[in-house]
Amino acid sequence: MSRSDAIRTLSVALDERSYPIHIGPGLLGRPETLTPYLAGRQVMIVTNETVAPLYLEAFKRGLPEELEVREVVLPDGEHTKTLESVARIWDALLAAGFNRRCTLVALGGGVVGDMTGYAAACYQRGVAFIQVPTTLLSQVDSSVGGKTGVNHPRGKNMIGAFWQPKAVLIDTDTLATLPSRELSAGLAEVIKYGLIRDLDFLAWLEAQMPALRRLDGEVLREAIYRSCAIKAEVVAADETEQGARALLNLGHTFGHAIEAHQGYGAWLHGEAVGTGMLMAAELSRRLGWLSEGDVARVAAVIAAADLPPAAPADMGVEDFLAVMRLDKKNIDARLRLVLLSGLGDACLYDATPPERLEALLADFPRR
Amino acid sequence: MSRSDAIRTLSVALDERSYPIHIGPGLLGRPETLTPYLAGRQVMIVTNETVAPLYLEAFKRGLPEELEVREVVLPDGEHTKTLESVARIWDALLAAGFNRRCTLVALGGGVVGDMTGYAAACYQRGVAFIQVPTTLLSQVDSSVGGKTGVNHPRGKNMIGAFWQPKAVLIDTDTLATLPSRELSAGLAEVIKYGLIRDLDFLAWLEAQMPALRRLDGEVLREAIYRSCAIKAEVVAADETEQGARALLNLGHTFGHAIEAHQGYGAWLHGEAVGTGMLMAAELSRRLGWLSEGDVARVAAVIAAADLPPAAPADMGVEDFLAVMRLDKKNIDARLRLVLLSGLGDACLYDATPPERLEALLADFPRR
Repeated sequence: MSRSDAIRTLSVALDERSYPIHIGPGLLGRPETLTPYLAGRQVMIVTNETVAPLYLEAFKRGLPEELEVREVVLPDGEHTKTLESVARIWDALLAAGFNRRCTLVALGGGVVGDMTGYAAACYQRGVAFIQVPTTLLSQVDSSVGGKTGVNHPRGKNMIGAFWQPKAVLIDTDTLATLPSRELSAGLAEVIKYGLIRDLDFLAWLEAQMPALRRLDGEVLREAIYRSCAIKAEVVAADETEQGARALLNLGHTFGHAIEAHQGYGAWLHGEAVGTGMLMAAELSRRLGWLSEGDVARVAAVIAAADLPPAAPADMGVEDFLAVMRLDKKNIDARLRLVLLSGLGDACLYDATPPERLEALLADFPRR
Repeated sequence: MSRSDAIRTLSVALDERSYPIHIGPGLLGRPETLTPYLAGRQVMIVTNETVAPLYLEAFKRGLPEELEVREVVLPDGEHTKTLESVARIWDALLAAGFNRRCTLVALGGGVVGDMTGYAAACYQRGVAFIQVPTTLLSQVDSSVGGKTGVNHPRGKNMIGAFWQPKAVLIDTDTLATLPSRELSAGLAEVIKYGLIRDLDFLAWLEAQMPALRRLDGEVLREAIYRSCAIKAEVVAADETEQGARALLNLGHTFGHAIEAHQGYGAWLHGEAVGTGMLMAAELSRRLGWLSEGDVARVAAVIAAADLPPAAPADMGVEDFLAVMRLDKKNIDARLRLVLLSGLGDACLYDATPPERLEALLADFPRR
């Protein structure tokens, strides 16, 4: 198979806001994958200090010469996902005199993608943007679906907008430089798709985990393709999370509490989600929905991905609840959790007895 | 006619985002005008230090007791229309633990409305909001149509979103406390509707200007109703300003330059728009589209509304051009201006010869 044969394309079906996801090796250096999605000549690349030395020049070399290309290089890390960082993007756009026909390009992981998307959503009340995710987590999850935004000291992603990209370009070659901790974090979201929706995919992942961990290109591309296919389907059915889209948040309510309590960036988002999914599985078992064998299977695949099996030692029950009460899924004072009604089948549940939740939070392993 | 008979209703037709505009006296104290549009029990009233002493208590007294009502009182003035002020609204929402089913209420003029709308657009990726405009300018223009946002030191309304309210409640009694300078500023936008679209309305305004200036209730309500009807029609046809909606910006490109150069708040927005419309009319005459008599008629109605007939003495040609080049209507490097192809008929024109524009900017009266 030649490298360009290896490129596969999915579509996120949202009427006039529909867009393609191109997945394959070597996309970065090929202008024809990007130029059809530009709104005009003005292009602002947003990236960070980790990604810029690796891919910025290669990416720019792939752009046609007639474009007016500028760049913003932000610091790296979840703790930089703030309104102040987004304001730097706006400052750069205005300093360059960019107008409504400009296009923002997010070159980096989930933090870069979320901030760039939010900057695009609100610059002159909305301009085009393109996702070029360079981490596994952003390739399988955050770059698809139009959730953009920043964190607030009181909660993750509290300020943001739904704003769809014009295209998602996933160059799987960029994973070659991904630190193994970030690879594991990305695998958490991949495992999530199996757990909430596709038992066959979960079984495939269990078998392929060693190949994924050693960055086997073909296996990785298959995992990314199947993950994006599920994400695209869910987003197309419920763009603004009025219902089913919330199921993509398995493990996230517990995970956000860990991230917020530990300080953004101390735990990677995917690591916190991995532990959070295990907590959700265990709570589902206590509610009678999963067997002990099911939970053991979840624990095994989380362990195989080298994700943390226990919550932080310094988090008490109230530390979890304080953040969970502010979760965006809640309605009035009711906590809503994504749980597993079976393996491969998630549900949104708002009737967990508080004492059952507190017992889970008290009993769950720490380390 | 009883006071409740005097309430008239228009609709902004935007499919599932359609909403009503209720216009009449005494709306503030009547909960039934507000409650149908609340998303849930949590209500955050956003107002400013000028409006709060006049109407906040009356407004709150009109709310049902079962609601959880909080308030944010911001400083007054266009110079406060910043991202920092909006962040104060977000802080208040998070401190109160408000969720996705909360509703923001903008009680005040255009600055309060634009900031509250933007805060609602981005809080938890979008919550409900209701406009309760208390100035003539916000009643006839900014509260209708979903343009929200804040200023940036480099340009007006550069950061924002299209986000429609659930309802617009125009209590015309609030105009009784409006300073006469702000009344004039509001009349600028009223006159605008006549100039761009409705010559009959312009003639009616010329006749009724003395009644409007002395706050005759019935005449004011008619002016507000006809203005909102035109605005609603234009917005329904072109919500995100891909075309015809830009015509509502007659005088605004010149006006924004005045506002930005003088420092936000030194000139009221409507004052700058008034002068800007006169500049647009004069440029239209020089392009052969209006007669001298037409321009004299525009000048007379602007004068009758007590709006400034001349640009600021300290503004040179380049001061105008520097801001105008960043106008959101421009495409790539081309200036696009709203001009008058005739009285009652506006057009969007991007082929003004630069020397004609510069001559207009050089010749236009200063004081």
